[in-house]
Amino acid sequence: MSDEKATRRRGRGGSDARRARRDGAKIEQFPFITRRIPMTEVLSAEGLETIEANAETILEEIGIEFREDEDALALWRQAGADVKGERVHIPRGLARALIAKAPPVFTQHARNPERSVRIGGDATVFAPVYGPPFVRDLDQGRRYATIEDFRNFVKLAYMTPAMHHSGGTVCEPVDIPVNKRHLDMIEAHVRYSDKPFMGSVTHPARAADSVAMAKLVFGEDFVDNNCVLVNLINANSPMVWDATMLGALKVYAGAGQAAVISPFILAGAMSPVTIAGTLAQLLAEAMSGMAFAQLVRPGAPVVFGTFASSISMQSGAPTFGTPEPTLVLFAAAQLARRLGVPFRSGGSLCGSKTTDAQAAYESAQTLLPTLLAGVNFVLHAAGWLEGGLCSSYEKFVMDADQLGMMQVLSQGVDLSRECQALDAIREVGPGNHYLGCAHTQAHFKSAFYRSSIADNNSVEQWEAEGSQDATQRANALWKRTLAEYQAPALDPAIGEALDDFIARKKESMPDAFS
Amino acid sequence: MSDEKATRRRGRGGSDARRARRDGAKIEQFPFITRRIPMTEVLSAEGLETIEANAETILEEIGIEFREDEDALALWRQAGADVKGERVHIPRGLARALIAKAPPVFTQHARNPERSVRIGGDATVFAPVYGPPFVRDLDQGRRYATIEDFRNFVKLAYMTPAMHHSGGTVCEPVDIPVNKRHLDMIEAHVRYSDKPFMGSVTHPARAADSVAMAKLVFGEDFVDNNCVLVNLINANSPMVWDATMLGALKVYAGAGQAAVISPFILAGAMSPVTIAGTLAQLLAEAMSGMAFAQLVRPGAPVVFGTFASSISMQSGAPTFGTPEPTLVLFAAAQLARRLGVPFRSGGSLCGSKTTDAQAAYESAQTLLPTLLAGVNFVLHAAGWLEGGLCSSYEKFVMDADQLGMMQVLSQGVDLSRECQALDAIREVGPGNHYLGCAHTQAHFKSAFYRSSIADNNSVEQWEAEGSQDATQRANALWKRTLAEYQAPALDPAIGEALDDFIARKKESMPDAFS
Repeated sequence: MSDEKATRRRGRGGSDARRARRDGAKIEQFPFITRRIPMTEVLSAEGLETIEANAETILEEIGIEFREDEDALALWRQAGADVKGERVHIPRGLARALIAKAPPVFTQHARNPERSVRIGGDATVFAPVYGPPFVRDLDQGRRYATIEDFRNFVKLAYMTPAMHHSGGTVCEPVDIPVNKRHLDMIEAHVRYSDKPFMGSVTHPARAADSVAMAKLVFGEDFVDNNCVLVNLINANSPMVWDATMLGALKVYAGAGQAAVISPFILAGAMSPVTIAGTLAQLLAEAMSGMAFAQLVRPGAPVVFGTFASSISMQSGAPTFGTPEPTLVLFAAAQLARRLGVPFRSGGSLCGSKTTDAQAAYESAQTLLPTLLAGVNFVLHAAGWLEGGLCSSYEKFVMDADQLGMMQVLSQGVDLSRECQALDAIREVGPGNHYLGCAHTQAHFKSAFYRSSIADNNSVEQWEAEGSQDATQRANALWKRTLAEYQAPALDPAIGEALDDFIARKKESMPDAFS
Repeated sequence: MSDEKATRRRGRGGSDARRARRDGAKIEQFPFITRRIPMTEVLSAEGLETIEANAETILEEIGIEFREDEDALALWRQAGADVKGERVHIPRGLARALIAKAPPVFTQHARNPERSVRIGGDATVFAPVYGPPFVRDLDQGRRYATIEDFRNFVKLAYMTPAMHHSGGTVCEPVDIPVNKRHLDMIEAHVRYSDKPFMGSVTHPARAADSVAMAKLVFGEDFVDNNCVLVNLINANSPMVWDATMLGALKVYAGAGQAAVISPFILAGAMSPVTIAGTLAQLLAEAMSGMAFAQLVRPGAPVVFGTFASSISMQSGAPTFGTPEPTLVLFAAAQLARRLGVPFRSGGSLCGSKTTDAQAAYESAQTLLPTLLAGVNFVLHAAGWLEGGLCSSYEKFVMDADQLGMMQVLSQGVDLSRECQALDAIREVGPGNHYLGCAHTQAHFKSAFYRSSIADNNSVEQWEAEGSQDATQRANALWKRTLAEYQAPALDPAIGEALDDFIARKKESMPDAFS
């Protein structure tokens, strides 16, 4: 036993000691959001019906391709679809009927039960950026991501009160062989956080490894009967599911684990250049994937996902924070509610290469619609930079601050008698101020959201302190956060079981880097 | 006649020449917004009734002070209020009954009829920042504003397609005596723009000058029968109207010109520290002012205004873009709709000293709610920096870009058969791309909002071009915009009449600088 392990084991003196250690870390954590404000909607029922009718036409007449997967085609044939080659023509109404078997709301369990999240209904769960091969910070600039960066982002997510989820590929640890990095990634989520996390989807065998590792953490029985992994299954838009994604989806749906079925669309390239056309296509794609999951295992939890942005029609580059994707987001959320399934979209998206005003305008113009639309599962809620090519340390803590604000906004207006404050208004009266009154004294600590990044001081004080911009303050904040980080308690037996599993798996195959 | 005037007069060859000159300038201008998306609301009818009942209690029991204005007190006595000293106790229901005389929607005329705006109902009008004594740009930093800056911001507003209004005090020209600067400000709005503008409220005599100058531009009869000035009347919260504001309000309401009746609230100091308490107080204040305008002249156009932010309970500094003011904004818009009057709030507010990510997050978190809440008249829509102490050149063009996005967002989803794009989806089919298809070719020019500030290029290209951030690009953009500026045509007789009026007024009194 290593000294480190011994220390951990010695430190484990029952639930009191665990609580003490957890208290020692003093992390503040908000529960997942249960919204108390209405949804913002942009389409009428009639408009939604038009989109739905068009999606059914796409499913039936044009069809969806399920590529290089005979199982999938056989399942569709059996369900009554008209399969021609790899093209599956799904009769009107069939996909919707299958999706009705999926739960409208489900719980994803975390290894710390206090961190478990509800996905669907009036709940919103924030998860970190997913997928970037690069990282950026103010000190070292842009570089390929490593497993150390990966662990750092897991730690930052753990330390962020309004981050409800540890996410998945918070960055690609390209220093680890491509066929083994999923093992280290899942280990990092378990060891450095106690929030719920995502499995690997880059190969069916890696999905199977993810489920196996989850069983080491949660126990086999528990995983067989509960959702402990949420997994991102991207369509190959337009209207294609490829073998890798179908393979991973079959593993997860078969194991009763959740799949986020996500058309990945840059409108104008992967979908029509119009909003209504994009909506019909992405609905058809999402429906085909969610229905297929139900063919694999009726009742498997699924999430209607969409990543939809537009492109610059001048350069072909993806653009973010512009009005058309916002309208797609609002309307797609309405379509998901009518289907009765949870919805994933949005986040803190931007095309900027640096954490400047562009990054912030675009991110805010994505994140606020995400909350107001009633998105249930929010990937990319913090850290996304450069169109998703970079995980940014400074952006992560800036976005985290915004997530805290969204959490407050979601709770609406407290109309209790105390908050109506008529007595305070009587007490103060015309021409006076409220700073010292009893009501203010009683509420000032919790009254207003306190930003971790914003500087609201006078220009004179700001200049005296070095005229720092938000990026510089964010740089200091993420470093301080990592310095203060303490790992949550983990049963050493679980840690050892994971280590053994990973060692065996790594030994079983040669490294692959592509 | 000066050479400049002679040139202008020679250039005036009837309406064709005017049109040619206007076309020569080639300014793109969007009409004021007529929204096609639903309002976002946060309070239930029951919640709104609670706030309304509390506002009536404030009006009746606590009362509102109308200071140093015997006329005002007499009008209130006559209307049936209980006046004790300067404290006016307004019986339940009286204010609401008076406000019912105000128009729910009105037109503010511009000297170019194409630029006239509708205020109220489903219309939204964007106007520039109002009030800052300082300006900032990237080259010269922060400094006191001058009349040259003022003219520059009028020109930038004129050149901004989604800026529907020329505004009022786009910055304070502190190089002009305080008792004369209103003359130069109004002249600048008339000469350098043809969009609608605001009058002076800093003294009743200056309000009268504003009306007199408007009559030189629009004709006496026209001004007597139409709204050509919208004017900002701030309450001295809590629950006080001062003599200056009442004096200006009497001039404008008496002349049938519009008053934006705006409680100016930093919650926690000028109102209770809670949202529900702040809402009740600002509703009472706004109702008392709007009702008073109806006592001055029944039917006078009024706008329910509110500027509501919160303060840092640690430093006392105002904060922006945080969730509590957003909730106030959404709820106050609902209250205004129930009163049946137009609503003013929001803008692109921020506390940052520089155009960094803080400025952008905060501005976007104010502007998007402004649009979604259905605000009718939006002051501070572009250029606001440093809690309103600075008009920023770079921020102006950054915000202007966001206004263009809001204009698109407000139009919702086009559900025409052409935009449903089913034929395009059939043509392209699974696995292909839409870049070259006929539908994309037909729509690509207008399909997506094209940002004037965002850089969406690859990081390699961005670096090759100097790794500029949004502020640097904005710096180039406002300079290019001013370089391209051409004044709209103005009848030289009007210009001369304004010059004469200003010269006579300036001669009539000594300079005052406080």
